Amino acid sequence: MENKSYLVQMNGNGVHGKTTVNGKSLNGSGVNGKGVHANGIHHVSVNGSLYPAKAKSRRQKWEVKPSEMAKNTLNPIRSIVDGMKLTPNPDKPMIALSIGDPTVFGNLPTDNAVLQAMKDAIDSQKFNGYAPSVGYLKSRKAVANFYSCPEAPLEAEDVILASGCSQAIDLAISVLCNPGDNILVPCPGFSLYKTLAVSMGIEVKLYNLLPEKSWEIDLQHMESLIDERTSCMIITNPSNPCGSVFNKEHLQKILKVASKHCVPILADEIYNDMVFQGCSPSLASLSSDVPVLSCGGLAKRWLVPGWRMGWILIHDRNEIFGSQIRQGLVKLTQRILGACSIVQGALDSILNNTPQSFYNHTLSFLKSNSEICFNELSTIPGLNPIMPSGAMYLMVGIHMDHFPDFKNDVDFTERLVTEQSVFCLPATAFEYPNYFRIVVTVPEVMMVEACGRIREFCQRHYRPLSHDSNDLDQ
Amino acid sequence: MENKSYLVQMNGNGVHGKTTVNGKSLNGSGVNGKGVHANGIHHVSVNGSLYPAKAKSRRQKWEVKPSEMAKNTLNPIRSIVDGMKLTPNPDKPMIALSIGDPTVFGNLPTDNAVLQAMKDAIDSQKFNGYAPSVGYLKSRKAVANFYSCPEAPLEAEDVILASGCSQAIDLAISVLCNPGDNILVPCPGFSLYKTLAVSMGIEVKLYNLLPEKSWEIDLQHMESLIDERTSCMIITNPSNPCGSVFNKEHLQKILKVASKHCVPILADEIYNDMVFQGCSPSLASLSSDVPVLSCGGLAKRWLVPGWRMGWILIHDRNEIFGSQIRQGLVKLTQRILGACSIVQGALDSILNNTPQSFYNHTLSFLKSNSEICFNELSTIPGLNPIMPSGAMYLMVGIHMDHFPDFKNDVDFTERLVTEQSVFCLPATAFEYPNYFRIVVTVPEVMMVEACGRIREFCQRHYRPLSHDSNDLDQ
Repeated sequence: MENKSYLVQMNGNGVHGKTTVNGKSLNGSGVNGKGVHANGIHHVSVNGSLYPAKAKSRRQKWEVKPSEMAKNTLNPIRSIVDGMKLTPNPDKPMIALSIGDPTVFGNLPTDNAVLQAMKDAIDSQKFNGYAPSVGYLKSRKAVANFYSCPEAPLEAEDVILASGCSQAIDLAISVLCNPGDNILVPCPGFSLYKTLAVSMGIEVKLYNLLPEKSWEIDLQHMESLIDERTSCMIITNPSNPCGSVFNKEHLQKILKVASKHCVPILADEIYNDMVFQGCSPSLASLSSDVPVLSCGGLAKRWLVPGWRMGWILIHDRNEIFGSQIRQGLVKLTQRILGACSIVQGALDSILNNTPQSFYNHTLSFLKSNSEICFNELSTIPGLNPIMPSGAMYLMVGIHMDHFPDFKNDVDFTERLVTEQSVFCLPATAFEYPNYFRIVVTVPEVMMVEACGRIREFCQRHYRPLSHDSNDLDQ
Repeated sequence: MENKSYLVQMNGNGVHGKTTVNGKSLNGSGVNGKGVHANGIHHVSVNGSLYPAKAKSRRQKWEVKPSEMAKNTLNPIRSIVDGMKLTPNPDKPMIALSIGDPTVFGNLPTDNAVLQAMKDAIDSQKFNGYAPSVGYLKSRKAVANFYSCPEAPLEAEDVILASGCSQAIDLAISVLCNPGDNILVPCPGFSLYKTLAVSMGIEVKLYNLLPEKSWEIDLQHMESLIDERTSCMIITNPSNPCGSVFNKEHLQKILKVASKHCVPILADEIYNDMVFQGCSPSLASLSSDVPVLSCGGLAKRWLVPGWRMGWILIHDRNEIFGSQIRQGLVKLTQRILGACSIVQGALDSILNNTPQSFYNHTLSFLKSNSEICFNELSTIPGLNPIMPSGAMYLMVGIHMDHFPDFKNDVDFTERLVTEQSVFCLPATAFEYPNYFRIVVTVPEVMMVEACGRIREFCQRHYRPLSHDSNDLDQ
């Protein structure tokens, strides 16, 4: 009798077992006729002759290797940054414009109402136990109320809380995609999509954003990538790393592509409402047929990325996801539970008691810093900054042919550290070489200083094009 | 030209592109000769003739189905409990002995030092940003110090913080196992192991615990299940659902099996130190060759399961995991970041400032309640409780042949709710029919009342065995 057959027995073909425990007899009986009979096995083994002394084939020596999934979990930012020699100029203090964390410089603290909500949740002692895997009902209701609008109404049941927007994205990809499927991902784009997808055996197809059109999507290109294994398209709006914000017309065109080819949308809207002028509608509010999983969280707008409070908003007014995708999401939340119960307990208060002035202050700061940075870099020969309209980033093109000292954006930004102690993330990390990304959350004085140093650096290395003596670049 | 070939270009065979942005020309150049050229593609597409008007095959209608992983994420507790008709007797208040959450009744609050540590972390405003994916160094050091012992020393680098012990277990399984591998899992045992493994295509082989030996492992059975695809054995000690605690000799025998067949151990030690008498050594402290990933967290001992603060302790004194497994774990933490930064920030203080009296009080309460429950149920005909030695559970065998009114443990516990408003989890949820699990964290008065009601229920339904008139059971 070989091991495999026990397993089949154990997992349910109704062998009735009998176990003797402390001298009493316990008769096994089927659960709904197809129960699991682990203790039945114990009875069968009483004679001791059942287990083969030598199994078919076992390891003779230690050989423990990481799984394929671990090997295939690749973080391009880490692998690029770790490969760079980042030795600052000892005469200049380091200015890191590379980190997408608004809290590092202390100039953008969260609001006191947010902190107070957390302390109240702790003091209540009501939020120390397990929350439901999808989150407390009251907290889900608070998120639903906060984001509900007449065009895209939300109830508590349309909200799934998660451990940060990262887990929300992970859950959304996990429920929609099988290995061998493909997803459409913006280029340049947030690297996590690819990290998650590739680790799950899902193919990533990059669709182009157009810098000359303020990073709108090349819709023709995006559409050309769709095939029958395309299980979702990821739309990031506002964008990391571009800081771009799509207007209503462009969003409608995106939805038209999705609708035409019946591809659901994963909307990464973590920077939702972080728009410098006017507002950007959510994708879901513009469509009544395309099903959308909108991912968001507290990280950016409330300036607490470490708290790991994210959510999925399920928009499905045409019943295309139906109960199956909802149930799939619920099941996936049961693998590991989601967000910290204290943050969940504070959520209602955070969403409802944070004053508008806090949001306004953050946005006016980001806008002002973006303008300072854009205006400064626009006048530097060889650089081509693209003005952002939201989020907290600004992308800068490098005219590499004017900088023969450097092989590429990685080389350029590495030397910028060596000479000027300014670190910007090379956009190769976003699969977009010859650009670099600047984070505009640093204090204004540092932003000005950094721009001055970048100017000095570029002036030193800029070369007019030798083959083009009429080049009119300044 | 078909889509697939673009992808190949985009992902790195060195096509040099040229993009025009805002009237300036950006020359693409390779990144280390094999860079990614997404903006190169844009150039190629300028003529507009490149994207095929019709792709090979696309969806004509909406058809969005949940992934195989979502479908294969099965929570046996949920599916069994959801299938039960739990209608309490309206004349008796409900007593739930089913929920493995020590906070629900309010009788086991966490310590004030724990709450204060959280509030201090919030007030400091130092822990709002992103923590490293493996956790703050200081927090990892605190965990390492807390669990380090001369036989199994730990440094900060041996600790990986996670979003609860569930994520710690998920990370540990994910790094050790590939689809098609198998893992050894205790039966009865915590259902999460199977939920996680099956959703990842990993086979689960259940090894038997022996109730007549205080739930020690049937080592012969366990050993018989090992083959060359066995990528780890999960050992839960102290045990959920059994409340059992292995002695040193038994732990050594387990290690001997692991060592003989070169199978690493995933030690679920979340109930570590929750032992009624003496202490149970950690598995890792008893072996210098077997590599062990020990999973734990704040949930149980500090009575804050909702906070989702877990960890993996990497024990690898024989360098069998080596740097590869460590790096694999680090990579996997980058998929979704781990624990809430506030709880991480509080961790050092929680571990160092919680008074011993708090732990002592919890344990003496659990021991006392276990004894009350065991003593009461031991005298009830037809039941066979197994006295626990730790954790917060007690398993009770049902002599089903004395209860002909019920098909099985699910039926038995369902009717116990209907008649007596007492809910115990049928152990079919742990793949162990004809038992039920009692959680001993309820207030003493409820425990006594519940036992009385269970007695009444059993007395009403107990039948002497008709074929055995000499049956001496009371």
